[in-house]
Amino acid sequence: MNTGKLKVIPLGGLEQIGMNITAFEYGDSIVVVDCGMAFPDDGMLGIDMVIPDITYLKENAEKVKGFVITHGHEDHIGSLPYILKELNVPVYATKLTNGLIENKLREHDMLRTTRRKVISFGQSINLGCFRIEFIKTNHSIQDAAALAIYSPAGTIVHTGDFKVDYTPVFGDSIDLQRFAEIGKKGVLALMCDSTNAERPGFTMSEKTVGRTIENLFQEHSNTRIIIATFASNVDRVQQIINTAHKYGRKVIVQGRSMENVIATASELGYLQVPENTLIDINEMKNYPDEQITLVTTGSQGESMAALSRMAADIHKKVTIHPGDTIIFSSHPIPGNEKAVSNVINELTEKGANVIFQDVHVSGHACQEEIKLIYTLVQPKYAIPVHGEFRHLKAQADIAKGLGIPSENIKILHSGDVLTFTNGEAAVTDHVQTGGIMVDGLGVGDVGNIVLRDRQRLSEDGIIIVVMTLEQYGRQLLAGPDIVSRGFVYVRESEDLMDQAREVAEDALNDCLNKKMTDWGKIKITVRDALSSFVWKQTKRSPMILPIIMEA
Amino acid sequence: MNTGKLKVIPLGGLEQIGMNITAFEYGDSIVVVDCGMAFPDDGMLGIDMVIPDITYLKENAEKVKGFVITHGHEDHIGSLPYILKELNVPVYATKLTNGLIENKLREHDMLRTTRRKVISFGQSINLGCFRIEFIKTNHSIQDAAALAIYSPAGTIVHTGDFKVDYTPVFGDSIDLQRFAEIGKKGVLALMCDSTNAERPGFTMSEKTVGRTIENLFQEHSNTRIIIATFASNVDRVQQIINTAHKYGRKVIVQGRSMENVIATASELGYLQVPENTLIDINEMKNYPDEQITLVTTGSQGESMAALSRMAADIHKKVTIHPGDTIIFSSHPIPGNEKAVSNVINELTEKGANVIFQDVHVSGHACQEEIKLIYTLVQPKYAIPVHGEFRHLKAQADIAKGLGIPSENIKILHSGDVLTFTNGEAAVTDHVQTGGIMVDGLGVGDVGNIVLRDRQRLSEDGIIIVVMTLEQYGRQLLAGPDIVSRGFVYVRESEDLMDQAREVAEDALNDCLNKKMTDWGKIKITVRDALSSFVWKQTKRSPMILPIIMEA
Repeated sequence: MNTGKLKVIPLGGLEQIGMNITAFEYGDSIVVVDCGMAFPDDGMLGIDMVIPDITYLKENAEKVKGFVITHGHEDHIGSLPYILKELNVPVYATKLTNGLIENKLREHDMLRTTRRKVISFGQSINLGCFRIEFIKTNHSIQDAAALAIYSPAGTIVHTGDFKVDYTPVFGDSIDLQRFAEIGKKGVLALMCDSTNAERPGFTMSEKTVGRTIENLFQEHSNTRIIIATFASNVDRVQQIINTAHKYGRKVIVQGRSMENVIATASELGYLQVPENTLIDINEMKNYPDEQITLVTTGSQGESMAALSRMAADIHKKVTIHPGDTIIFSSHPIPGNEKAVSNVINELTEKGANVIFQDVHVSGHACQEEIKLIYTLVQPKYAIPVHGEFRHLKAQADIAKGLGIPSENIKILHSGDVLTFTNGEAAVTDHVQTGGIMVDGLGVGDVGNIVLRDRQRLSEDGIIIVVMTLEQYGRQLLAGPDIVSRGFVYVRESEDLMDQAREVAEDALNDCLNKKMTDWGKIKITVRDALSSFVWKQTKRSPMILPIIMEA
Repeated sequence: MNTGKLKVIPLGGLEQIGMNITAFEYGDSIVVVDCGMAFPDDGMLGIDMVIPDITYLKENAEKVKGFVITHGHEDHIGSLPYILKELNVPVYATKLTNGLIENKLREHDMLRTTRRKVISFGQSINLGCFRIEFIKTNHSIQDAAALAIYSPAGTIVHTGDFKVDYTPVFGDSIDLQRFAEIGKKGVLALMCDSTNAERPGFTMSEKTVGRTIENLFQEHSNTRIIIATFASNVDRVQQIINTAHKYGRKVIVQGRSMENVIATASELGYLQVPENTLIDINEMKNYPDEQITLVTTGSQGESMAALSRMAADIHKKVTIHPGDTIIFSSHPIPGNEKAVSNVINELTEKGANVIFQDVHVSGHACQEEIKLIYTLVQPKYAIPVHGEFRHLKAQADIAKGLGIPSENIKILHSGDVLTFTNGEAAVTDHVQTGGIMVDGLGVGDVGNIVLRDRQRLSEDGIIIVVMTLEQYGRQLLAGPDIVSRGFVYVRESEDLMDQAREVAEDALNDCLNKKMTDWGKIKITVRDALSSFVWKQTKRSPMILPIIMEA
């Protein structure tokens, strides 16, 4: 029996969707699985993305042996450029995943300074006390891996994001035999994808979408076909290209992320494009509609994506016209439903025939697939990962149904330190975690105070009162002047603004008459008077900002 | 053949969900069907609600005979208090609808000044050249009516929001015989609810939800049961109360809108509450969990609603505990999915068992019901109403499938004037329409400029540069001082702010050295310098607001 302690420390990914990052620690070694970003939630006004707080890793920098990445989606690789700047350790990933990471590092001019290693399925790497084996899985992006994490204290299997696809479009099916073999040797804990744990049944094969797409091409052989899907779903794009080719159509790719992924996937051999099939958008005019297929970004209704620009009639090269067949090969991600619906409305109004149902399958395992993995791996402990709390709970229920005792099912929170000692697990500590907001070039310089201000400014705007006082505050030299933004349309509210100015002036004069010299107090007095006037008149609470200048 | 012109003029409801209002005009008579509000869309920061622009009605005020209301939902009655202030005409509605309108008028202190008339099903009212008959339908609120609008130029049938419920919880089924009778006599046009026109099949009876609720009460007989649903769905609440009573539970109502609707519905006889079933929240402690049912608002994840406050642990009287059974008797309205999911996560984390699937049916007709109404009414023209463009288009396809010629199917836009002359319809004109934003007490004082400012403020905040110049602009008396809000956390960005001040000062001195006296130009120079500095340093675009004071 090994007496060392194995620690599992999720540093993100459990309080929100995205930002997956988990540290595994044994003795003097730490390996980190994934390094994702999260999209800002609705309250994070103006924020571009959220990255994890890696204080714990920085405090233990000498232990960290590297990042091991399961697949190339943003919620698993998106924070790498930011985090590697603070902790320059090697990155291990499969070929396509590495290719997508390199694109990202190139943008940040970090290719030269980052050590990277491409790992094949079945291959293991030794990182300090750990050995990590990459196991083939299926997902909505090629080259996704599960990980077997071997430590002196036992083996942990981490599925990454996965599904079971017996008939994948490209490459092999998930390596179920290897899951079984590892399971047979004894697995301490399984960390399994929970995204679809609420859904009964089995996720359909990606190939079924290919058949649907083929039916649609047959049915709409007389029109232009525009298909929106996720840029990173190379297999989907492959099936679209194959079908287009079969039906004598040229393919045009629109959207920067789509073009990038297709370039990388083609270069690395994950996408086979028949000769003379891809054409440039400028050649479109040389072909009749029924020989054209456009593959485009925008399946989530993102306002700047190619399809949204076509729908809004602001795309430079593509004009939607009556008869166009437009296929959403996607489901709206929760939160995007309204945006997607708006785009569908705009396209429909232009006379297009929009198809948005049943041209997509998920990349995540449903309940029966989750049961399959548990049954092959037979872990002692279950640690549901990837998903909101409701999804983790749904997986916990599945694990319980398969006979894993409740006390061996651990739903963790970010920062929890789950320690395995002599094969027994307990949460023994909690380390600092959290989301760090990225806004433009600023990383972490926007916090809750700034967000609260943005929230308030967004709802009712701002009223600024400026006044110049003589040095000792006894005499008013200029103002008070009132300027507002985002409050009312000033030209149509001159009376209100005049009255506001008078209120501010009265309050200020009152202060001066009382020989008040504390500018802080003067500001508060003016602000309160104005605030209560504005509320009474309008039932609004703009930010009120008195500024006193000294001359 | 009548040679007069009948005009149908939708003044709202076709460019967005909600804000339903349609004028019917013949000779010197106008009647208006419904007067709804819309919720602000995502870009309308800080806006409370949107009401229709009724310029056309005000220009023809002497013609307007009254408002005829189909049912008591906000998107059909919500604008009444605002519109009646500008156009005080009588309001006609069924009993419960009138009760809900009265609640609204009472809040605005307009009960005394508004003429109202309660109409029964089957009853007709004469309004100028028009006769309007109220026809019983089914919907997710009691007392919903379709309207037969008889004019000298022909009959138009308007379904309002409806479904076909053969076994309603309360009152009669939709009066299909009357639709048939009117149809038999000849109907010029049918204006039919399109909300569910994309959905195949038939909407299930409200009673099926009652059976599901009963099963859940049986299954969870040992726990407290908390059910969230729409406040206005009186039948749903009735079924919950009946089931609670049957299983020996007390019922507690939470949420202001729920309490109001229940009070009005009980008072008017639309809700039967068995004696000693409703108890006050403060009595909850006197009963064990398994004798308690809470009916609450918050089924849409609204942040201030009772259930959301329970989930966030800020409800004053109810604390969620492990074992609570919480039922969402609702579907998320598009746009609310994420908010609902957040509440489910919070409740699940507190150990509650959350049930959110299949405890709801829609209040709107699916495709087979729509076909039924068309087949009974046999209209010459089809005018799809209620729904986004995609839904209107889906109904147009249904109408086409039923043999209505394409040229007789009219998808209108708000403001279109559809004129029937000698039984032939054409869009002949377009009148002013639009949404007027309500923000606090302000109606229409927030426009696009204010919204653009709020948008910008919300994303990157504001930097204010104040300076006091001597009267002729030759000499700087104070400043420039820099104040920011919503930009960066200033205490941790002192260097940046110091540099920004220097940039502003340099730009200002440059102006003064050049003897620039046009304050507009000085402001632009300072703003541009600061703007480009800030962008270079942070890749952000806060609003930059230079203010010059004169002393």
